[in-house]
Amino acid sequence: QSNNAPSSYDIHDIKITGYLQTQFQKTQSPGISSFSGGDFAENSDNRFIIRRGRLKIDRVDKYSSIVFQIDATQNGVQLMDAFIQLHQPDNKRFQLTAGLFNRPFGYSIVYSSGYRDFPERSRVFQTIMPRERDIGAMLSYQPIKELRFLNIDVAVVNGSGLFARDYDSKKDVIGNLSFKFDSLANKKLHIGFGGSIYKGSVRNGTESYYTDNGNGFTKNTDPSYKGANLKRNYYGGNVQIQYDNTFGTTSLKAEYVAGVQPGVAASSSISGALASQSFSTQPATDLYLRNFTGCYIWLTQQILKSKFSALLAYDVYDPNSKMNEDQIGLDNNTTAGDIKFSTLGYGMTYLFSSRLKLTVYNERVINSPTQLTNYNKDIRDDVFTTRLQYRW
Amino acid sequence: QSNNAPSSYDIHDIKITGYLQTQFQKTQSPGISSFSGGDFAENSDNRFIIRRGRLKIDRVDKYSSIVFQIDATQNGVQLMDAFIQLHQPDNKRFQLTAGLFNRPFGYSIVYSSGYRDFPERSRVFQTIMPRERDIGAMLSYQPIKELRFLNIDVAVVNGSGLFARDYDSKKDVIGNLSFKFDSLANKKLHIGFGGSIYKGSVRNGTESYYTDNGNGFTKNTDPSYKGANLKRNYYGGNVQIQYDNTFGTTSLKAEYVAGVQPGVAASSSISGALASQSFSTQPATDLYLRNFTGCYIWLTQQILKSKFSALLAYDVYDPNSKMNEDQIGLDNNTTAGDIKFSTLGYGMTYLFSSRLKLTVYNERVINSPTQLTNYNKDIRDDVFTTRLQYRW
Amino acid sequence: QSNNAPSSYDIHDIKITGYLQTQFQKTQSPGISSFSGGDFAENSDNRFIIRRGRLKIDRVDKYSSIVFQIDATQNGVQLMDAFIQLHQPDNKRFQLTAGLFNRPFGYSIVYSSGYRDFPERSRVFQTIMPRERDIGAMLSYQPIKELRFLNIDVAVVNGSGLFARDYDSKKDVIGNLSFKFDSLANKKLHIGFGGSIYKGSVRNGTESYYTDNGNGFTKNTDPSYKGANLKRNYYGGNVQIQYDNTFGTTSLKAEYVAGVQPGVAASSSISGALASQSFSTQPATDLYLRNFTGCYIWLTQQILKSKFSALLAYDVYDPNSKMNEDQIGLDNNTTAGDIKFSTLGYGMTYLFSSRLKLTVYNERVINSPTQLTNYNKDIRDDVFTTRLQYRW
Repeated sequence: QSNNAPSSYDIHDIKITGYLQTQFQKTQSPGISSFSGGDFAENSDNRFIIRRGRLKIDRVDKYSSIVFQIDATQNGVQLMDAFIQLHQPDNKRFQLTAGLFNRPFGYSIVYSSGYRDFPERSRVFQTIMPRERDIGAMLSYQPIKELRFLNIDVAVVNGSGLFARDYDSKKDVIGNLSFKFDSLANKKLHIGFGGSIYKGSVRNGTESYYTDNGNGFTKNTDPSYKGANLKRNYYGGNVQIQYDNTFGTTSLKAEYVAGVQPGVAASSSISGALASQSFSTQPATDLYLRNFTGCYIWLTQQILKSKFSALLAYDVYDPNSKMNEDQIGLDNNTTAGDIKFSTLGYGMTYLFSSRLKLTVYNERVINSPTQLTNYNKDIRDDVFTTRLQYRW
Repeated sequence: QSNNAPSSYDIHDIKITGYLQTQFQKTQSPGISSFSGGDFAENSDNRFIIRRGRLKIDRVDKYSSIVFQIDATQNGVQLMDAFIQLHQPDNKRFQLTAGLFNRPFGYSIVYSSGYRDFPERSRVFQTIMPRERDIGAMLSYQPIKELRFLNIDVAVVNGSGLFARDYDSKKDVIGNLSFKFDSLANKKLHIGFGGSIYKGSVRNGTESYYTDNGNGFTKNTDPSYKGANLKRNYYGGNVQIQYDNTFGTTSLKAEYVAGVQPGVAASSSISGALASQSFSTQPATDLYLRNFTGCYIWLTQQILKSKFSALLAYDVYDPNSKMNEDQIGLDNNTTAGDIKFSTLGYGMTYLFSSRLKLTVYNERVINSPTQLTNYNKDIRDDVFTTRLQYRW
Repeated sequence: QSNNAPSSYDIHDIKITGYLQTQFQKTQSPGISSFSGGDFAENSDNRFIIRRGRLKIDRVDKYSSIVFQIDATQNGVQLMDAFIQLHQPDNKRFQLTAGLFNRPFGYSIVYSSGYRDFPERSRVFQTIMPRERDIGAMLSYQPIKELRFLNIDVAVVNGSGLFARDYDSKKDVIGNLSFKFDSLANKKLHIGFGGSIYKGSVRNGTESYYTDNGNGFTKNTDPSYKGANLKRNYYGGNVQIQYDNTFGTTSLKAEYVAGVQPGVAASSSISGALASQSFSTQPATDLYLRNFTGCYIWLTQQILKSKFSALLAYDVYDPNSKMNEDQIGLDNNTTAGDIKFSTLGYGMTYLFSSRLKLTVYNERVINSPTQLTNYNKDIRDDVFTTRLQYRW
């Protein structure tokens, strides 16, 4: 279920796995920004899409392993994972991963979309780590005896994400610490929790950038700011609880993240959702330093030990946690990039087999009113999704 | 031979198949529009190209199957097929297909290019259904006992084709009915025939569109026409006859299609061939509603039961069947997008083995004179093709 | 180790192989042009990249074989090889190759990057044959008895390279003759050598082109020059010596190439390195005919029969061999596209296993001072590379 691993660590020659997700979606109004499979086309409020089409090839030797994964959809064919791992023959106590891999931050980023109960990762993680991957190197430590519930990862990455050669000279560092207790309370209870740090920077391409003054943004201008590396720091915590009870398996997962995110202003060419999203190329306009918070809670309840499970999710992303929504749009340099969004998701999955899954899911996407013309009330951007997934 | 099926419906783990077509082509003049592998470059009248490079991965389980196919050529790597099928364990009486699949319209669209005797599909089908595929869902019914010669498909698709998220909010519907009698007259005669319907629409992005008045096009203008969905309706019929005789197998295939196609005007930036081709993005200019007809006849004759076969084809595409060619270019809003083209093709194939095939083929492409400066006589756009194909 | 062959010529069903190269690189100044994995981004002097991610699928039958290879990196997914080979059942005396394959010119072009000791091909070959491949057909002859040390290839190709449909109507011809004596001096000495010719042309898209007058370039203008095909002729020679001695295997490889290369002038939008690089689309500006020379010497020494090898390389590319560097930038139409570059490379490889290799390598890139503002001294463009490679 970890994206940063081959299909199995048993020694094997080339093995091909993958999964396909095809779905129909309906939204409330055409052309909305969406974190449920990407924005809708300007005049479209419903669509069939191939959400993910993954082909993964891996191989494990005594001392090393390799993973190579591509994604093929109507949007093109792209490399998703490409990493080499070095490890000891009998265990993975120390492991070096080099190449293109999932950033080891928190729980949901590294967890495979082919196994996740919910259709998408939360809005906050899609914003701060779009497409999850980056290129670099990672050292992992997982003790094998007394402390085998422990896992530590430290990674150095470009910071510019999946489809980019680095555009600045700074690297970003990620640290992750997680604990996992697998079989408590008569093997019915499984608990995991952890914490993560991201320390990075974003290059400013202009002579100005904006900082939060509590009531909006202040512009800072100086020739030396061109080329300055502004902080990009995140802190996160996560917990997972699974309980196998007589009604069926109950699973609760939650994650919280906060930090400083360098973004830009929303404008006619940059939507609010993109204004605070991490960059893969040098942003052309002034940077805005925003203090953000985000979280999600995911609850899955198997129904009477059947093939049906009920899904309930709630997530929040506040790109500017110091600003009340009713102040956004006043003469304080705030834009649609500062608006907080909450999403209430609920639905069902039906497992035809271990390989085939049907998901029916609705998302109620909520924003508070602001002073901005287009956001003076909750915009109509709920999304309904029916997805069929096959894992091979 | 159907693109909408795995390599075989026998239960199997991942299987990789595919085919590669590499060819040399010579045309009469540089830079022509062509339906024989795409337009020639501005100053080129001959070329080596990789026509198709297909890699197909499929898997069949008791209740489901999956097909995933990419196409890799000098023009890039793209997803071609990606669909999941649900069916009963022992038969395919009812089958649901979801994802990216070939539109179930007529015979030649769904028939694999790796098995077709002729190098390309006919001009009319390349125009109304470019690249054959669309994203959606399809229900198929094939009785297993008394009526097992029957097949019915009903599909709902985006309507915008292979490489697109839907750009409007309307879906298109396709219905197909076909009959197949496989072993008549001492198992020497095989007959198939069928009919198809396509009911769809194309969104108009401007306040005007053009309709046929019998002597050309009339412009209709109204603010409400912006966003109007104009009809895109096709009707088709097809027949296939194969006879295994003492001279060698004889095969005759023919298909006819007619309907209404929303296109645009040809202009300096839009060639005549593209003016009536179905869109995958919102057309920027006024739509033109054209009544079209098209057909092909394919005759293959094996030579003395040898590895040689002779090929003979004739196809016609008339994008505007109400307009005589000599009226095109008069002051009636007609353009190069209204010109009828006929193609006479003839050649040979040699089967080195079941996997390896050499095709030598010439196409005589004919248009009648119009009043348009560039089309006042038959333009010199014949194409000669030598193709080597390997199927693996 | 030849790119123009399947993984093995033994008859086999589909086989998947490939290799992944991931690396960290540091250069002396941000934004340099580089032949060590491509140019650095404008503000970046170090980077993690996926250098090559190859997936190769091949199959060999009695009379034919097929190779299909894609490359997936952060820069996208592209077709690399796609060819069909026809041959006799028991030997490859005569072999026809059709499709997309490596140009059979010299030694290093055809030699696989997954097996080469050095991280990259030399600057001269990356310039005259970028990405090595072209589409066409090749006839090869390799005697099986008395003359089995001999190999002859003759190919006809588009001339426009890997990602292009031909943009002119002329084809280019390549001839290659090589000799290989494998087990001399008690099977300890292996010697190979050969010579190659490339006869081609580049279409001029303007009414002018420039020729070398000994002191710079003279402009030739005439309406008839638009569409003229200017000569693109190369001549090359190569030698390889390997000696298995008590200290470890010693390998020396050298290659020399000279000829006439049609390029363009360097400008604010075309870097010096790109000005003399072969084109895959019609160049928009006037052509410059340059007499060039280039060579490389590669020395690999295994250390005490261990898994360590020392690498030493020297290569030179002089795009304009008739011009002294101190005259470049005078009023003689010379540009940064005429500057000679030499590279001294040195490093180590460590073979963890037959599949896994670590390379640490530094390149000292040297240019002589010119009269051009940006090139009045040796520019700071050395590159250090640490690469991990897995071959599967």
